[in-house]
Amino acid sequence: MSDLIDPARSEVSDEELALIDRYWRAANYLSVGQIYLLGNPLLREPLKAEHVKPRLLGHWGTTPGLNFVYAHLNRIINARDAEVLYVCGPGHGGPGMVANTWLEGTYSEIYPEISDDAEGMKKLFRQFSFPGGIPSHAAPETPGSIHEGGELGYALVHAFGAAFDNPDLIVACVVGDGEAETGPLAASWHSNKFLNPVRDGAVLPILHLNGYKIANPTVLARISDEELTDLFSGYGYAPILVEGEDPARMHRRMAHALDEAFDEIAAIRAEHRAGRAAGRPRWPMIILRSPKGWTGPKEVDGKKVEGFWRAHQVPVSNARGDESHRRILEDWMRSYRPQDLFDADGRLVPELAALAPRGERRMGAVPHANGGRLRQELQQPAIEAHAVDVRLFGPDETASNRLDAVFGTTGRAWMEEIEPYDVSLARDGRVMEILSEHLCQGWLEGYLLTGRHGFFSCYEAFIHIVDSMFNQHAKWLKVTRQLKWRAPVSSLNYLLTSHVWRQDHNGFSHQDPGFVDHVANKKADVVRIYFPPDANSLLCVADHCLATYDRINVIVAGKQPSPQWLAMEDAKAHCEAGAGIWDWAGTAGHGEEPDVVLACAGDVPTLEAVAAAGLLRELLPEVKTRLVNVVDLMTLQAPEHHPHGLADDRFDALFTTDKPVVFAYHGYPMLIHRLTYKRTNHRNIHVRGYQEEGTTTTPFDMVVMNELDRFHLALEAINRLPDQGEAGEAAVAELRRRLAEHRTYICEHGEDLPEIRNWSWPYGSAARAGD
Amino acid sequence: MSDLIDPARSEVSDEELALIDRYWRAANYLSVGQIYLLGNPLLREPLKAEHVKPRLLGHWGTTPGLNFVYAHLNRIINARDAEVLYVCGPGHGGPGMVANTWLEGTYSEIYPEISDDAEGMKKLFRQFSFPGGIPSHAAPETPGSIHEGGELGYALVHAFGAAFDNPDLIVACVVGDGEAETGPLAASWHSNKFLNPVRDGAVLPILHLNGYKIANPTVLARISDEELTDLFSGYGYAPILVEGEDPARMHRRMAHALDEAFDEIAAIRAEHRAGRAAGRPRWPMIILRSPKGWTGPKEVDGKKVEGFWRAHQVPVSNARGDESHRRILEDWMRSYRPQDLFDADGRLVPELAALAPRGERRMGAVPHANGGRLRQELQQPAIEAHAVDVRLFGPDETASNRLDAVFGTTGRAWMEEIEPYDVSLARDGRVMEILSEHLCQGWLEGYLLTGRHGFFSCYEAFIHIVDSMFNQHAKWLKVTRQLKWRAPVSSLNYLLTSHVWRQDHNGFSHQDPGFVDHVANKKADVVRIYFPPDANSLLCVADHCLATYDRINVIVAGKQPSPQWLAMEDAKAHCEAGAGIWDWAGTAGHGEEPDVVLACAGDVPTLEAVAAAGLLRELLPEVKTRLVNVVDLMTLQAPEHHPHGLADDRFDALFTTDKPVVFAYHGYPMLIHRLTYKRTNHRNIHVRGYQEEGTTTTPFDMVVMNELDRFHLALEAINRLPDQGEAGEAAVAELRRRLAEHRTYICEHGEDLPEIRNWSWPYGSAARAGD
Repeated sequence: MSDLIDPARSEVSDEELALIDRYWRAANYLSVGQIYLLGNPLLREPLKAEHVKPRLLGHWGTTPGLNFVYAHLNRIINARDAEVLYVCGPGHGGPGMVANTWLEGTYSEIYPEISDDAEGMKKLFRQFSFPGGIPSHAAPETPGSIHEGGELGYALVHAFGAAFDNPDLIVACVVGDGEAETGPLAASWHSNKFLNPVRDGAVLPILHLNGYKIANPTVLARISDEELTDLFSGYGYAPILVEGEDPARMHRRMAHALDEAFDEIAAIRAEHRAGRAAGRPRWPMIILRSPKGWTGPKEVDGKKVEGFWRAHQVPVSNARGDESHRRILEDWMRSYRPQDLFDADGRLVPELAALAPRGERRMGAVPHANGGRLRQELQQPAIEAHAVDVRLFGPDETASNRLDAVFGTTGRAWMEEIEPYDVSLARDGRVMEILSEHLCQGWLEGYLLTGRHGFFSCYEAFIHIVDSMFNQHAKWLKVTRQLKWRAPVSSLNYLLTSHVWRQDHNGFSHQDPGFVDHVANKKADVVRIYFPPDANSLLCVADHCLATYDRINVIVAGKQPSPQWLAMEDAKAHCEAGAGIWDWAGTAGHGEEPDVVLACAGDVPTLEAVAAAGLLRELLPEVKTRLVNVVDLMTLQAPEHHPHGLADDRFDALFTTDKPVVFAYHGYPMLIHRLTYKRTNHRNIHVRGYQEEGTTTTPFDMVVMNELDRFHLALEAINRLPDQGEAGEAAVAELRRRLAEHRTYICEHGEDLPEIRNWSWPYGSAARAGD
Repeated sequence: MSDLIDPARSEVSDEELALIDRYWRAANYLSVGQIYLLGNPLLREPLKAEHVKPRLLGHWGTTPGLNFVYAHLNRIINARDAEVLYVCGPGHGGPGMVANTWLEGTYSEIYPEISDDAEGMKKLFRQFSFPGGIPSHAAPETPGSIHEGGELGYALVHAFGAAFDNPDLIVACVVGDGEAETGPLAASWHSNKFLNPVRDGAVLPILHLNGYKIANPTVLARISDEELTDLFSGYGYAPILVEGEDPARMHRRMAHALDEAFDEIAAIRAEHRAGRAAGRPRWPMIILRSPKGWTGPKEVDGKKVEGFWRAHQVPVSNARGDESHRRILEDWMRSYRPQDLFDADGRLVPELAALAPRGERRMGAVPHANGGRLRQELQQPAIEAHAVDVRLFGPDETASNRLDAVFGTTGRAWMEEIEPYDVSLARDGRVMEILSEHLCQGWLEGYLLTGRHGFFSCYEAFIHIVDSMFNQHAKWLKVTRQLKWRAPVSSLNYLLTSHVWRQDHNGFSHQDPGFVDHVANKKADVVRIYFPPDANSLLCVADHCLATYDRINVIVAGKQPSPQWLAMEDAKAHCEAGAGIWDWAGTAGHGEEPDVVLACAGDVPTLEAVAAAGLLRELLPEVKTRLVNVVDLMTLQAPEHHPHGLADDRFDALFTTDKPVVFAYHGYPMLIHRLTYKRTNHRNIHVRGYQEEGTTTTPFDMVVMNELDRFHLALEAINRLPDQGEAGEAAVAELRRRLAEHRTYICEHGEDLPEIRNWSWPYGSAARAGD
């Protein structure tokens, strides 16, 4: 990785670079102003204490580099009429993104109260990290952003997600060298193996080595240039180095580097789209090595700041209270020469304003960054429509999760060599499989936020790997739902299959149903959780989820063949209600008050609860049982806590106000208590679920180990009923006998009893499909 | 990366390699037997249906490669008297690890019922993935394992954690090419920047390219050799390639590669320990490219199996029911020639048994893999003792979390260049900082499981990044606690600071208190959650946690200066009780029944609850208030659910049986409901906590946004009390006025009201420290 650029090659003139430098200074000036100033935005009078905010919050260190990249991207967008989306990995550098979108005019268009003059500038400064104002990061509020960057690690994977199926787009993605140390980012570089230059856009990674994290050097900034080159060549990129401190030289280098990178991208597109090349090209990337806190104070209180981690947040900490600090701040801001940048009204001078792209070419206004504007309604269920802009994401589990019928429609995306014996690999495959939940999640987020549709199927236990990414996406949606200018985007849909009850061959490490507990903590507007009990219900739920927007829907449904309980029309009605009584399964008549309620949520618990109802009918026919199935878990919650929460009278109509309820639940029992604690009959709800017991054993033994099986459920029901006398005692003895028989059989034979394996509901009912 | 090995260099003879091949065949035979057989273990009669398990569960694909590595490591351990720990990344290949530890004798020593003869072999086969038997992965039950490998991604980081401060140890770490696609693994390669060859052991990564995941090729197996070499050179390693299919040639190559790698490790150690070299050496690694399902069936049902992903799990699926399948299985097993490997009693023949290392050199018996055997009690609080074998792990946040006093004792580990202006970097630093929670967690797990002590400090929101790693560690501990031969290891201690209430400068993305909800789902034996309300309590809690073992302790405590409520003696008593009444804060006398209980857990909620108690005392002096502080969250849970759960009478003595309780809680309110739903007074418990509202704003505005502030708490208390008449109305009006005043002030000034910032408890009390 040498400085390969021939200075003679570029057409950019010294005059143009001088203008770019002024534009950059304007962005830097506005960034510092946001962090520090309450008043006197143009420094038209000496800086006084009252002009400085009492609380100084923000991240300066990364900002000048982000501004530098932004200014140069503006140039090349204009030069080539390019469509560029800016993904800002170091989202902490929010002031820079805000500054640039203000300079180009998008900010004032979206937020007219922040006008493009001195008054607007004053408000722009004041609102930053100020109560009632805007956050310090490149947040949903920031025009042009699809990436918050508060939790580091996901910039590059978002960039690739945005580039998929956007053939004209170039996603410029700044990756900070701190972020580059995270696991998700380290794996994200391999996304190039899944990007097809014919149908997908390009990602131009810009690795920004400013050398430091909060308080440490970064790994990549301190390894040798040779290792650095090897590493990114090994990842499959052609790195271009831009390194230095002197702005004038750096402007020329950066302009050349972008010319080279855009040339190369254009050449790759041309070759591949003309059919003259196939396979994975060697995409360009830029390694930008510049000082942290570039152009900021060199020293404060005798300690090195520029080019060191002390520049990370607020380099001059007491500018309000300490005059010498205030002097440093004022000198720093004046070093950008605001009088050369802004006119008498505080507007950017025309020759600089002319540097920004126009209309939707502005990176703050590019429609992909407000993907709902591009989003088309998904045509359901016409499969042909899916061929346009839907992708399926999963960590090498599509077949393992028994979704391989999809390969009849499309293959797995794969840009490396394809061997003759490979199965369902295709350069234009729409199933994205890599053994990284992080990459699946991140690609999908980037894809959805730029206005498309997609789906993530995953083992239930391992979706916890992206707990934190889920958090960030839920937070993003919570805020965007409050921003009218953000058009709605498709919901992020999870299908969690290969779930806790069917990990026969993998055992304990693969058993964790707790993702939904995590989900239930997020804002009720944003999250939905579904447990379809059978295939028809799954179809109804999935159909619904795919049509929603700005939400996160979690569907938990096993992949194993299992009973079909409901005809399609019944399934539709049941799923719309979210929860309901299955009269055919109980012995209480329609509308009749039961002695005991057997409730269930989840496919396996439903099977066991229905079987338990059968056992009670067989052994204690006088007892009036009712079976309640819950599809939409949020119906359980109080209506003031969740919009899907059933009104109390409807809840009571299902669960009674005073009868025992034995609730067979798919996951950790506490979630049911947490959701129902406000309900009238809560004290009588007895939940059975996963007790964190399991290993590689038979399916039925798994439910027995957790006391969720039909025998334990029936025993619990009897235990909670009023004394049933001798009949009750006989029933208990019989249930215990059968349970023991099971245990003996499986330990001897290594499989479940035939009557368990081949069980079906023995009492016919017109309400049931397939009868 | 060429095949650099000079065949003449190695001393290994053809005869020795032939013996190693037989040993490998024995391991492969035993692996297949575990997956398939119930009886006829030595194939002394033709294979019949009843000899085959009815449910075939396990992973064959990776196993022959794992066995190959094991056999060759045995050789080099003997040749050099080396101390080697085997970390098996593809832990799904459990049959291989079990087979090898049985061959070397450790298995039968630990599990005498699985004897080293034909009878033991039969049991060995039967128990695998069988009800009542052992799991299919390299689980806690497996001798020599510190790594389950069910959830992929953490092998290499565990290996480095094990190598830290173990100067004589070589950790051989097999990394599967599927696992290599995960984020955590992709970042783990950079762990070499933190390993000091003078004081730490060595990690020898063995990247096993067998080409396929469950149903896809792997990325690293399909990129060019040039990119592969570049990638690992870029990561800082010197790769040695071992590639092929022919066992005889592969044995020689592998023997040479290990000789070369061990030579290089020895040379690095000698140079660095003699002071002739410094900085980071270029450690060797091995890239082993061998067919998936090597030596297994080439084809089944006309489809390619060996060397393809169909070999991943059980290559011959119906060996019990289908005679042709059974024939394939029998031929396959006989291809290993068991009659040449086992004697008439089913024991490994002596010339092969002689190949295994002896005693603790056996990889199944190496004490580091049963770290509790090496663990020493931590000397507390004598700081000197910490210098021996304690490390602090964190993602570049030690200073940001205000723990930088530690740098007075030790530095941050850093093996790259150190610049003159760097701060607290040191080759022998004991603070491990990398911007990857995955690496911090994984290093610490490896460190603890090999018998040492450590500590993980992290931003509260971002600990969710390792939710799934936490899960796996909790599951590991749950199982190891049941295994008598596993000596206890130190607890994994989290300090979650920079918490939700003090994210002034980062805002919403940095606010998530839900990790403890996730923790609370795990087995009660394993997890503890503490919310120390002040510094003395934090000291007590930390002191306790550091002395515990086989647990995961979560301590949530902010980094900001805050009031000190309790003298040390009071703090000790309070923390031991886990929850208690602070008489001095309430107006109800000692032992007197209050009108209302103000409860709190967490430092910020405690501050607000105490202040609310003050407001009530000021505005409604007649109301008898009681303040209850909860340090140990698990005291709230029913005693049948958690060993720390208070007995009901003790709970009632704190919270009353019928008075309103306003509970100010640090996290999501639902957790308190979930923990207390069984308590007598639950219906009167009104919880306030984080409502998922926040941005970059002032500390007090954060609590106001979530209605957790003193004014809202006092208003809630009044609302829940019996009507207080005019005094009550006046109090409500006054509280609302002050609240509005706050909001006005901060929106204008950007900081909290001085009386909030400078607030202190206005009513003296002898019970309080510092008064």
